[in-house]
Amino acid sequence: MKETELRDGERIDDLQRNGRVIIQDPSRFCFGIDAVILSGFARVKANERVIDLGSGNGIIPILLEAKNRGGSYTGLEIQEENVEMATRSARLNGTDDIHFVCGDICRAQEIFGRGSFHVVVSNPPYMKSDSGEINPKSALALARHEISMSLEDLIRESAALLRENGRCYYVHRPQRLGDIIYLMRKMRLEPKRMRLVYPFVDREPVLVLIEGRKNGNPELRIEKPLILYDAPGKYSMEMRDDYGF
Amino acid sequence: MKETELRDGERIDDLQRNGRVIIQDPSRFCFGIDAVILSGFARVKANERVIDLGSGNGIIPILLEAKNRGGSYTGLEIQEENVEMATRSARLNGTDDIHFVCGDICRAQEIFGRGSFHVVVSNPPYMKSDSGEINPKSALALARHEISMSLEDLIRESAALLRENGRCYYVHRPQRLGDIIYLMRKMRLEPKRMRLVYPFVDREPVLVLIEGRKNGNPELRIEKPLILYDAPGKYSMEMRDDYGF
Repeated sequence: MKETELRDGERIDDLQRNGRVIIQDPSRFCFGIDAVILSGFARVKANERVIDLGSGNGIIPILLEAKNRGGSYTGLEIQEENVEMATRSARLNGTDDIHFVCGDICRAQEIFGRGSFHVVVSNPPYMKSDSGEINPKSALALARHEISMSLEDLIRESAALLRENGRCYYVHRPQRLGDIIYLMRKMRLEPKRMRLVYPFVDREPVLVLIEGRKNGNPELRIEKPLILYDAPGKYSMEMRDDYGF
Repeated sequence: MKETELRDGERIDDLQRNGRVIIQDPSRFCFGIDAVILSGFARVKANERVIDLGSGNGIIPILLEAKNRGGSYTGLEIQEENVEMATRSARLNGTDDIHFVCGDICRAQEIFGRGSFHVVVSNPPYMKSDSGEINPKSALALARHEISMSLEDLIRESAALLRENGRCYYVHRPQRLGDIIYLMRKMRLEPKRMRLVYPFVDREPVLVLIEGRKNGNPELRIEKPLILYDAPGKYSMEMRDDYGF
């Protein structure tokens, strides 16, 4: 690891998996539990081509590459500084299987071509662009609000990028589940598998994980709940064993 | 209670709520936990007009009337024998607020008129008509399979029967959630509230409860999980306290 790879304000975090690391800048956006959970929910088979739409600092491609055998990983990200930083993270991990491309999700099918991936993953901005106060120039705002893209853009482009029977994996807020399922069905990415993430067993869910299949048959399998904590501050056994928290 | 109200093979079951009872014939169809849970999930305000689409032996209108103040309850049911038995159950309970009508859900808006109810509830057949072996004449088959109606018929007629901002409440299998949410949104019954019912905390859900609002804004609230059992054969505290199991 070369110290020269780091810019002002950046740090290197150990991902606790196969020795993988990531460069992060806390003043921009650090990855959260949602990216880690999504990378556990997504399934990648050997030699599949995977794209992460809105890859930010690159956490999802880096975790997916660490967890799965074979495959190639592309991250599409609109912020040039993120692409540059994620590219340095991939280099630090010594892998040639991860690449980051600077571009707009709304133009993904123009950039990569239709049917060019087996798997699409995304941890998109959770909030609509009309909700809350937004500084449209900030890196945080682009990551959190649907400024540069809408949920409909994401799902339309996912469908176009996928081969027949290809899979998409998203993590989002439960409040948007109506939009997500409606748009997936409309764009022929049939919802096939879903899991709700609850902080505690007696609380409302905070995240939803969903898998779609291009032109799949309509039948949704909902998995057992993912409970984050057994007690305040104490991660559940699944979070500790499967996600390393 | 008059013994003469009972036909051969029928029995009277105590509903453990406000002294309410129901007549059931075990050779036809007895109500299950889903009807009881749906009647706890549905919300009825004073003086609202409520219709149950596919009311079977009448369990849902009888439970809703027992739980809520005011309101009038109509059950629409295609099997004449069920309508006759449910009418006797309503009479046994000494209420004038519950009525059963024999008719086809697919023609509900012709029978009752558009916008004639504040609330629609339904515990519809769970299985598609092309799944499994079906005896199309049996009472059980009509209750379990989409023979006389499809999910699309149910949601279309619900939307037509409801006034502006009226609510619908359904219980169904989680496998159908993609169909349910897509059709609700398409018919402008926006999914607003949802709850998954898990047998145990570490198992897949067996039922989904969902509330829609006619022309509501898109934002879905998913509630805490409903866990049926603490241990095999031992109902959870919520099931005991709130549902009387």
